[in-house]
Amino acid sequence: MPSPKRQLHLNAFLMTVGHHEAAWRLPQSNLTAGWDFHHYKRLAQLAERGTFDSIFFADGPSLQGDPVHRPAGLLDPTVLLPALAGVTERIGLVATASTTYNEPYNLARKFASIDHISGGRVGWNIVTTAGAEAAQNFGLDETPAHRERYARATEFVEVARKLWDSWEDDFLVGDKASGQFARADKIHRINHQGRYFRVAGPLNVPPSPQRHPLLVQAGSSDDGRAFAARFAEAVFTAQQTLQDGQAFYADLKQQAVQLGRDPNSLKILPGLVPVIGSTEAEARAREDELTRLQVPAYGLRQLSQFLGREITEEQLDRPLPDLGPVSRVEGHQSRFALIVELGRRDKLTVRELLGRLGGGRGHRTFAGTPEQIANTIEEWFTSGAADGFNVMAPVLPDALTLFVDEVVPLLRKRGLFRSEYTGHTLREHYGLLRPENQYTHGAVAAE
Amino acid sequence: MPSPKRQLHLNAFLMTVGHHEAAWRLPQSNLTAGWDFHHYKRLAQLAERGTFDSIFFADGPSLQGDPVHRPAGLLDPTVLLPALAGVTERIGLVATASTTYNEPYNLARKFASIDHISGGRVGWNIVTTAGAEAAQNFGLDETPAHRERYARATEFVEVARKLWDSWEDDFLVGDKASGQFARADKIHRINHQGRYFRVAGPLNVPPSPQRHPLLVQAGSSDDGRAFAARFAEAVFTAQQTLQDGQAFYADLKQQAVQLGRDPNSLKILPGLVPVIGSTEAEARAREDELTRLQVPAYGLRQLSQFLGREITEEQLDRPLPDLGPVSRVEGHQSRFALIVELGRRDKLTVRELLGRLGGGRGHRTFAGTPEQIANTIEEWFTSGAADGFNVMAPVLPDALTLFVDEVVPLLRKRGLFRSEYTGHTLREHYGLLRPENQYTHGAVAAE
Repeated sequence: MPSPKRQLHLNAFLMTVGHHEAAWRLPQSNLTAGWDFHHYKRLAQLAERGTFDSIFFADGPSLQGDPVHRPAGLLDPTVLLPALAGVTERIGLVATASTTYNEPYNLARKFASIDHISGGRVGWNIVTTAGAEAAQNFGLDETPAHRERYARATEFVEVARKLWDSWEDDFLVGDKASGQFARADKIHRINHQGRYFRVAGPLNVPPSPQRHPLLVQAGSSDDGRAFAARFAEAVFTAQQTLQDGQAFYADLKQQAVQLGRDPNSLKILPGLVPVIGSTEAEARAREDELTRLQVPAYGLRQLSQFLGREITEEQLDRPLPDLGPVSRVEGHQSRFALIVELGRRDKLTVRELLGRLGGGRGHRTFAGTPEQIANTIEEWFTSGAADGFNVMAPVLPDALTLFVDEVVPLLRKRGLFRSEYTGHTLREHYGLLRPENQYTHGAVAAE
Repeated sequence: MPSPKRQLHLNAFLMTVGHHEAAWRLPQSNLTAGWDFHHYKRLAQLAERGTFDSIFFADGPSLQGDPVHRPAGLLDPTVLLPALAGVTERIGLVATASTTYNEPYNLARKFASIDHISGGRVGWNIVTTAGAEAAQNFGLDETPAHRERYARATEFVEVARKLWDSWEDDFLVGDKASGQFARADKIHRINHQGRYFRVAGPLNVPPSPQRHPLLVQAGSSDDGRAFAARFAEAVFTAQQTLQDGQAFYADLKQQAVQLGRDPNSLKILPGLVPVIGSTEAEARAREDELTRLQVPAYGLRQLSQFLGREITEEQLDRPLPDLGPVSRVEGHQSRFALIVELGRRDKLTVRELLGRLGGGRGHRTFAGTPEQIANTIEEWFTSGAADGFNVMAPVLPDALTLFVDEVVPLLRKRGLFRSEYTGHTLREHYGLLRPENQYTHGAVAAE
């Protein structure tokens, strides 16, 4: 029997009425969909029909963007995921949650609870939170420094993993006759004492189907890569060109190997904003229509946030000013570098740059026919740039419907993508193993 | 037309396989139900069939009780509620969340999100968290002092209310042609600066159907009552006798009136643990069977926690030792006072006291026929001790099934309780108004 062909992994990144900042202005877009559970229910069921590995919601604890020019306001995804767990069967459910503005005990518990409720389908996109607006919702004036945020994130994940391991799988006795429910020696205090956290434990949730949520990471700065190489099982990344994608892929896999990990235990999914048309001309016309609907004030505000420096209307028809080296940025380092490089490489004015960023905020937009989209996916997948894709529909539900109905069948026909789910947990969809419990083999003494 | 008869409010307080600490040892009890979503789904649907106003989950951020002798571990209820929202239609959904170990921005957002997802059915039981075990999961050695916890809770709720009001209801413009989505002057920074919190806002969730979750309170200490009189719309309380219930009811309503509130805007629901039999003898036999199955080590540990002092096996057949005045207690003040008074009044040994506490940890247990249970409910309701009851089934689902099938029909027949839902939001079930927005009338300047 031939060995089964390597399989693509697809994540549907869901965002209000679409990733394109002007999607809400299209006639078919529902203005209040962003906080309508039924909208997300339809999207989750649509992605499940397309046998996606997972759906994903980004998040941040502040009012992001510019509510005057685009639907703003996000339901807390750790609340949305369990609601979606009840109306889906197999698809994985991934949400961003901040290590900067949460406590590890609360967050570890939340993900363990969702894993129980969903039957093992939850994933956590581990982020650090930049931006003064978020800081000021938590008693700070300014964002903590980039390196500091990652140091806290590292310890945060260490604590969370200890908490998820604090109950061994065989804790249950359940002897009704004698009145013994559990074995005390299978439930451990963790007594973590570190620079950022002191947490005694144990967690107050018994082990869930996956024990740990799938660990996802999405920052591609130097600190972000080191973090991903150590912890991540799936990585979302913004890469504009095949060459950039290959370089990132090779670097991250190599860093993981250097830490003793199997490179296949870490799946890399670049973002792809697919603008789909039945002809290339139709796809381009759709993209142009969206670009035409962009409000410069919105794009400028977002660009200024990414760059950490005010860019104004007067600069619209000039190239980006010199912004200094990325190492001095305390906010979104990898996105800063990508945007500066994009402007320089393609010699773009600020206005042109806003057009290029409108679809996916730095993620790669690709306009074409279903065949062309399947081709670019296959090319990146087979030439060392991707294990799959983070599919960011520019318009929701329309572009995701087209992707599921037109692109997914092509990928299946080429033997690159599943026709039905074979696993039950999210980790099984990604071809990953349930993590070992650090207490089970006596590596850590019971207490 | 005669004015409609005053109506009872019923809340179903759900806890693993029942409130009685020995419920898990009964033959019918499912050992892993405590973290099984389908168990809670069945219970929620059962309570909804009984047209209860709401279901409720208690919570705390530590492993409470004694996992060796009773199922321990709780799904995070702020994750469980949204999952239950998707499988119910009308019933209210209330969860405890701690003001001691959360950040107001995160928690305000969570409840606003659940309110959206559930169509306006969420309630928040506002608690302060006692206990060294919880403290040690959040970097502290000991519980913050009682008064300190309530001071923080007060500011916490003030911040949360500002955040829920930070968007006015008419923020939406939604002009696709011009590209204006919202009015900037309807979305406010709150710029809260207090002793415990600095929070800039605005919230990143638009106003939800109820705008604020129903605010519930459950501590009956002096600090707790003052807090409830100011903020609570529903109060859960443990009262052992009709006289105690009347005194509490009169005091709390009076405190609310002194603060300028309508006494009907605050509903008081004493706990009731109904042990139901088709005859009184059958009910008593059920209660005795549960008492017989209690494990003293479990009860002693819980008693020690409530009293803040170790009570040992050697003391089982003696009365409680002198424990000093309640004012020196930094933990569960009202429960401490209730337990000490119960032991003194009924001249109980520690062993007898454990029997009396086994069903509801200090809440009133009542064994009888459906008729007798309806009678005691009606008596308390019509004699100034209750606006309704917090129904704490000792065994789940069995005792709740009996309550819904046998007691609720009697209450309906007497004209005391609804036969179908008339409202849509939780606040409507409790006969309460949607709160006013403090920004709407220019009471606070826009920013």
